Amino acid sequence: MALHAVILAGGAGERFWPASRQKRPKPFLEVLDGVSLLEATHRRARRFASPGCVWVVCGREHAAAIRRETGLTNRRVLVEPRRRNTAMAMSWAAHHIAAHDPEAVLVVLSADHHIPDARAFAAAIRKSAKAARSAGCIVTLGVKPRRPETGYGYIQTGPPAARAHPGLRRVKRFVEKPDAARARSYLRRGGYLWNAGIFIVGARILLQEIESCAPDLHRALSPLAKAPRARSGAALERAYRRAPSLPIDVAVMERSRKVWTLPVSFAWSDVGTWLSLAEELGVAPGETRVVGGELISDDTGGNLVWGSERPIALLGVEGLAVIDTGDVLLVTILERSPDVRWIVSDLKKRGRRDLT
Amino acid sequence: MALHAVILAGGAGERFWPASRQKRPKPFLEVLDGVSLLEATHRRARRFASPGCVWVVCGREHAAAIRRETGLTNRRVLVEPRRRNTAMAMSWAAHHIAAHDPEAVLVVLSADHHIPDARAFAAAIRKSAKAARSAGCIVTLGVKPRRPETGYGYIQTGPPAARAHPGLRRVKRFVEKPDAARARSYLRRGGYLWNAGIFIVGARILLQEIESCAPDLHRALSPLAKAPRARSGAALERAYRRAPSLPIDVAVMERSRKVWTLPVSFAWSDVGTWLSLAEELGVAPGETRVVGGELISDDTGGNLVWGSERPIALLGVEGLAVIDTGDVLLVTILERSPDVRWIVSDLKKRGRRDLT
Repeated sequence: MALHAVILAGGAGERFWPASRQKRPKPFLEVLDGVSLLEATHRRARRFASPGCVWVVCGREHAAAIRRETGLTNRRVLVEPRRRNTAMAMSWAAHHIAAHDPEAVLVVLSADHHIPDARAFAAAIRKSAKAARSAGCIVTLGVKPRRPETGYGYIQTGPPAARAHPGLRRVKRFVEKPDAARARSYLRRGGYLWNAGIFIVGARILLQEIESCAPDLHRALSPLAKAPRARSGAALERAYRRAPSLPIDVAVMERSRKVWTLPVSFAWSDVGTWLSLAEELGVAPGETRVVGGELISDDTGGNLVWGSERPIALLGVEGLAVIDTGDVLLVTILERSPDVRWIVSDLKKRGRRDLT
Repeated sequence: MALHAVILAGGAGERFWPASRQKRPKPFLEVLDGVSLLEATHRRARRFASPGCVWVVCGREHAAAIRRETGLTNRRVLVEPRRRNTAMAMSWAAHHIAAHDPEAVLVVLSADHHIPDARAFAAAIRKSAKAARSAGCIVTLGVKPRRPETGYGYIQTGPPAARAHPGLRRVKRFVEKPDAARARSYLRRGGYLWNAGIFIVGARILLQEIESCAPDLHRALSPLAKAPRARSGAALERAYRRAPSLPIDVAVMERSRKVWTLPVSFAWSDVGTWLSLAEELGVAPGETRVVGGELISDDTGGNLVWGSERPIALLGVEGLAVIDTGDVLLVTILERSPDVRWIVSDLKKRGRRDLT
């Protein structure tokens, strides 16, 4: 019943443009800690998973870079023939890993999240794995909210899950990203946690839940039943062609009755936007934070600066993100920064592949 | 009684940092019109001055570039042994040119101003020169103010100067850069003009006025009396070492009784700051203006963008100047942009010659 880390590296991180690009998306960026988010995730995974039990699921275009970055062997890098969202990525990983280790417990992680306290994180994973193993449930980590964040989904907690597993609770419901008023009320009322998208579940349990909660997805997986160890080829191709593109939350978590949550209070961020990075770094009135590059002047503070080789001077500005990637420059109000995804989609429409 | 254009190219243009640098100050920048401010000034001068009657006064470090830029011969470029402000620059030019042409009328211009209507400008110069010649006065152009500008000095006009020279008026007083309330009252009350720092005066009249208004400066010039055509050497060196560093307004204009002004209504700007360039270019709410570079996105408008090879995206920002010179990046509130000079002086203190 070994713990297997499954690192999902399929996200584009578009709201992190222009640092995150198709060729070098967010997991590869050294945003914090001086290593890439991917490598930091890999190191966190190694606290509970042996080297032979760390897997990455990714697209073809990033496989080589991922092997270089993590030192993982070919075998451990599951290259999806096309992008089909997290439900399919997890399904294939569950199938593939179960073929090697039928008792495997999966710990599903995003390649581009930030969790400074790796020790507290590993302890939570072990506690969750114990429950997943003995109760056959799906455990999702629920992070105690620190602010009325509108960029995250929430988990409303239910009653304690089982006497044998103190701390774990049933999930009443998953809530999609709320508006500001609702987010504030969640914080006030309590009983709401940030959905960190970190799942701990036995591989076979996950496949069972897919069967009962997401029949379309289950059917798409059938070619893999005959070739469970396939890493490429016709069976995998067929499965991916048929698979619906769904996030695992929608396909399984919101429907399954086996989902528990472990409330955790360590710091966690999906580093999804410049705004969330600013919060992570402690940008506040008067406090500018610099990631790379050289800030030569700033009289006001309260800005986030992502520099390259060019020194940057700020004068009289506040609450800005100034992102200089060397080949593109973005200047945005931090609060508006999640909207950079519209710039990206506009650039794509205009065929500016050089800039996306 | 030929007209001689004397282009003063000694200014550092520090408030135009980081585009304006010690090695390549503002006169060399192609800010508007697709040619450098210096070359545009040269072309304006050629409307009233023959090729042999255009002179530039500059520092040693820029002499070669000025000759390249303007095509002027060595003889026409007066290289100051040190920087001593405009009073000394004009004094030397008057001395030197009078030695070649005792009846010369000087038209003193800054190398880095912007005057879109060159024809109206030349007409004003000719009218002023006529008065300067026949009445022996110093004519200064007074620009009808278009806004309560606090970045310019003002001229308060007196009564009409002489029946023979309609339009010209006596100068009641020169006023230093006012605060905002005062600038508004000047505009409301009328009778105030922007001091454009453009002077038309006979070379010998100027030297006489220096003698009576600025005795220290006059004494400093005495070595040149024996070597009036000196372009370098001990006499010039001595004169510059002794000369007080004063602007011509303080040394002569505010004291002389011979100063007249010609009110003009054509557009004029000293392009002194990013704010004045923004005004010149018509930056307004919703209207962003781009000088060089590529603006790939801007949802709000009202910004000034000075780009280099790197595309620039703006999101949610307004009233900003984003100045990317390739080696430095400045992001400033336009209203605060005149304060970049403090950044420059700070960088100098820190020995960052690479950035100033």
